[in-house]
Amino acid sequence: MRIAMAQINNTIGDFKTNSATILKQCHEALKFGADLIVFPECAIFGYTPADLLERDSIIKAQTKFINQLIKKLPKDLYVLFGAITDNKKAGKRYNNSALLVKKNKVIRSFSKELLPNYDVFDEERHFESGKLADNLVTIKGKKFLVAICEDIWGWKDLNPFQHDHNPLVKFNKKIDAMLVLNASPYSLQKSSTRLEVAKKCAKQVKAPLIYVNMVGGQDELIFDGGSFAINKSGKLLAQSLYFQEDLTLVNIDKSKTLINPQPNVEPYEELRQALVLGLKDFVYKIGIKKVHFGLSGGIDSALIACLAVEALGPNNVTALALPGPYSSKLSFDLAKKLASNLSIDFKKVDFNSTYKAMVKDFEKTFGKIKFGLVHENFQARIRGDILMGFSNLNNSLLINTSNKSELTVGYSTLYGDLCGGISPIGDLTKKQVFGLCEHYNKSHELIPKKIITRPPTAELKPNQKDSDSLPPYHLLDKSVEKLVVHKKAATTAVDKRVLKMMMRSEFKRWQAPPILRVSTHAFGQGRRMPIAHNAIY
Amino acid sequence: MRIAMAQINNTIGDFKTNSATILKQCHEALKFGADLIVFPECAIFGYTPADLLERDSIIKAQTKFINQLIKKLPKDLYVLFGAITDNKKAGKRYNNSALLVKKNKVIRSFSKELLPNYDVFDEERHFESGKLADNLVTIKGKKFLVAICEDIWGWKDLNPFQHDHNPLVKFNKKIDAMLVLNASPYSLQKSSTRLEVAKKCAKQVKAPLIYVNMVGGQDELIFDGGSFAINKSGKLLAQSLYFQEDLTLVNIDKSKTLINPQPNVEPYEELRQALVLGLKDFVYKIGIKKVHFGLSGGIDSALIACLAVEALGPNNVTALALPGPYSSKLSFDLAKKLASNLSIDFKKVDFNSTYKAMVKDFEKTFGKIKFGLVHENFQARIRGDILMGFSNLNNSLLINTSNKSELTVGYSTLYGDLCGGISPIGDLTKKQVFGLCEHYNKSHELIPKKIITRPPTAELKPNQKDSDSLPPYHLLDKSVEKLVVHKKAATTAVDKRVLKMMMRSEFKRWQAPPILRVSTHAFGQGRRMPIAHNAIY
Repeated sequence: MRIAMAQINNTIGDFKTNSATILKQCHEALKFGADLIVFPECAIFGYTPADLLERDSIIKAQTKFINQLIKKLPKDLYVLFGAITDNKKAGKRYNNSALLVKKNKVIRSFSKELLPNYDVFDEERHFESGKLADNLVTIKGKKFLVAICEDIWGWKDLNPFQHDHNPLVKFNKKIDAMLVLNASPYSLQKSSTRLEVAKKCAKQVKAPLIYVNMVGGQDELIFDGGSFAINKSGKLLAQSLYFQEDLTLVNIDKSKTLINPQPNVEPYEELRQALVLGLKDFVYKIGIKKVHFGLSGGIDSALIACLAVEALGPNNVTALALPGPYSSKLSFDLAKKLASNLSIDFKKVDFNSTYKAMVKDFEKTFGKIKFGLVHENFQARIRGDILMGFSNLNNSLLINTSNKSELTVGYSTLYGDLCGGISPIGDLTKKQVFGLCEHYNKSHELIPKKIITRPPTAELKPNQKDSDSLPPYHLLDKSVEKLVVHKKAATTAVDKRVLKMMMRSEFKRWQAPPILRVSTHAFGQGRRMPIAHNAIY
Repeated sequence: MRIAMAQINNTIGDFKTNSATILKQCHEALKFGADLIVFPECAIFGYTPADLLERDSIIKAQTKFINQLIKKLPKDLYVLFGAITDNKKAGKRYNNSALLVKKNKVIRSFSKELLPNYDVFDEERHFESGKLADNLVTIKGKKFLVAICEDIWGWKDLNPFQHDHNPLVKFNKKIDAMLVLNASPYSLQKSSTRLEVAKKCAKQVKAPLIYVNMVGGQDELIFDGGSFAINKSGKLLAQSLYFQEDLTLVNIDKSKTLINPQPNVEPYEELRQALVLGLKDFVYKIGIKKVHFGLSGGIDSALIACLAVEALGPNNVTALALPGPYSSKLSFDLAKKLASNLSIDFKKVDFNSTYKAMVKDFEKTFGKIKFGLVHENFQARIRGDILMGFSNLNNSLLINTSNKSELTVGYSTLYGDLCGGISPIGDLTKKQVFGLCEHYNKSHELIPKKIITRPPTAELKPNQKDSDSLPPYHLLDKSVEKLVVHKKAATTAVDKRVLKMMMRSEFKRWQAPPILRVSTHAFGQGRRMPIAHNAIY
């Protein structure tokens, strides 16, 4: 039996386009002689539907588009796709389901049992659990168990979130294969954990497992694709591409195991691909084609420049140099060189007159003010104003250049360098920013070497260095990993300093742009912290 | 038996202060001859604990402070308070519990069964359900059932959120009273629904019900207090104050029913008290004493001025007039008059030189630009910069002046008038803004009448009126109620226009300040919407 794994990139609520994609993939699969095609979780709605589910009219629209799609699906193909369905029993309003269509009819509906309700997931907000054990179906004489994403993550040793039960543990029916529909977001090197989870399940049910994942960026989440099929011993039978749409066929009766199915990708290369996809999809899915950012001559904006060029093409990227009163010529020269290396539009806006005027206007009312935070923040915020002005002028999206280490300690100016519609590197520690820049420089010096080697500085006052206000980055980064990602207690002096700065700067992160998530715990919607609190423990 | 209802105002994670408050109230209650004192839900932790619960070290600290507190509690009093406890069974890590202490020992622990996981509530994220039926205890020969907040909200006709069961329906034990610990956030006229819910429960269990609520502002939430006791027929036996701390005693054996227990408060007066408390507590709980805002001569900032004065006292409030190139003299004069009426510090910053310099610096790079959005936003953002400069100068919190109608359609400049640490009127429609201003003017013309009667304008271009870009406010407000609060489908032409503007401006609200919640559905953390989507239904 031939099964097509349809790894699609959809957009939340774009039922028309998502239906068309599903239809197209079905016809494609038919050409390859598929008997059954499997799509990801929420294939027609997009993931995460979030509180759009509170608008009945949206669910009605989804149902209308599903009904239209079903009529158009090829009659000779079994089609299994993720959809949101009404919960007919007591409890939350919806089920996170998979619909099986044959001959233009829904012949079965399967619902997800384990609902993730941690980190970025809020599924217990709108969904009621189904029963995995009920999700058995026979297709062309073969018995399948249909599972949805979290359903296979009930293993306490493999999921940091501890479900109260694992629906697979007691499962003992004989099946020919397990079909798993997913919208499983990327985090660094998650694919290996995913494969381990799948192997454990395949061994448990003593049958092959077909894992179909979503691909594409959606706000803060990046779906990395990498769908696969394994046999009951956990050996790979088929493997789809990462970070792009793909259609892969697998024959569960005859497939040979794959030898070296995909080249091993090193972590920084994986990170690069993830961020490029996340950035590209965010920009395109909000209907914009062009982006820009402040290019300072420092390492963070240098990385943003490289990612933006890959995501949108050099013709759609503008770098703005905004040298202030304390910026060095070196910074400007380095920014200019990088822009030239990347063949992107490079504009300089000298805002010194504006800055002087702002200080003057301010002092006219409040009297002479000693140089300090007021002046530093004016510089950062005027930059923000000009960058946003460029958005208005060119319908271009401002990309934020903050990294996770800075965000942790609040080393950024709200409404200044925190401006931007999307933060592509807000989940990267400074170490990762360096690592990814060096990765970009592997074959040749794309990023001028000096950008990487000079000491980080905000250049908002004379001879300023990040290290004046922050612990050295190699120590700060360790604390970030420990306190933010692993949520451990502060034990060292640096940890304690960082924890205090972190807990006191929640107000800045509350108003930060969406942050592409690449770690297991990012700032953004997956982390919900009060502002007015005194819990510095 | 005398029961003290201890309506306290705590701060999240401030275990030291919260414990001290509990201890103080216990001694107070003893003076009045109380046998038992009941505190709110999460009395020692604060509500909502949110993802602070993901840091084990914080729970350890809570436990340490609870143990210290217990040792100090008066021996002759039964003390019942909300606390977060480890869940010893399978499932989520914690229970939302109530601890009963006598003679310096925890003699019983009771856990919440119904966990709210909708709107601003995320309790299924960290808590496991207990069983209400297990929460029976005998104190001095009286039988009590202990419930926590949502436990009494299982009634389908009274809770828009539909729980899959109501643990009270099958409850049939004979009890002497029900004790309910709450952290029930305010929304307009919620107290009457709350009383109705309590009456239904009292009738169900055929016993009096003691309802103890939290009071105080906590980020976006305002806890309104208003604790009460009713007899088994639902008649009021005791009633605590709204919007302030209180300690009220009730004798469940002998209490007479109260006649006209609290004067009826009209809705705008209630709203005023709620907003003043929410603003005051936000500012104090983040450790700040002073606030400021741009006072434009328009109605939104006029209302902010009145609220700020009540919350923090006139000496801690600064109004900044920031007349721009298109501001009228009338606006300035009205702002000045209001500031004088309120006896607050009034400063004028003329930013025209800055504005001219910014346009010039920008045009130097991009060439002559036709007057438009770039110029309008520069004005709004320079105002933001100056207002934030004042924050840096005076350690004063910038208060945002946006209302819900504007926020719905995105009629505001991100990093401009959307700046601020807290949005006190971001959950008020324009109609409510007018209504509350008129309420302030009831006894005398506190707010110059012209501020209320002139047509709303942003004054960012010549002769600009809000009505140039928006539906008339009386229609816009109706759509806001329908689409945002009640989540209904768009049916009228105005609805459809508003819906589109709303769905396209999620990116602005993503970066908006915390918004004090006074409706049943506010923007802010209780509403989670994707940015990159195409679900305009």
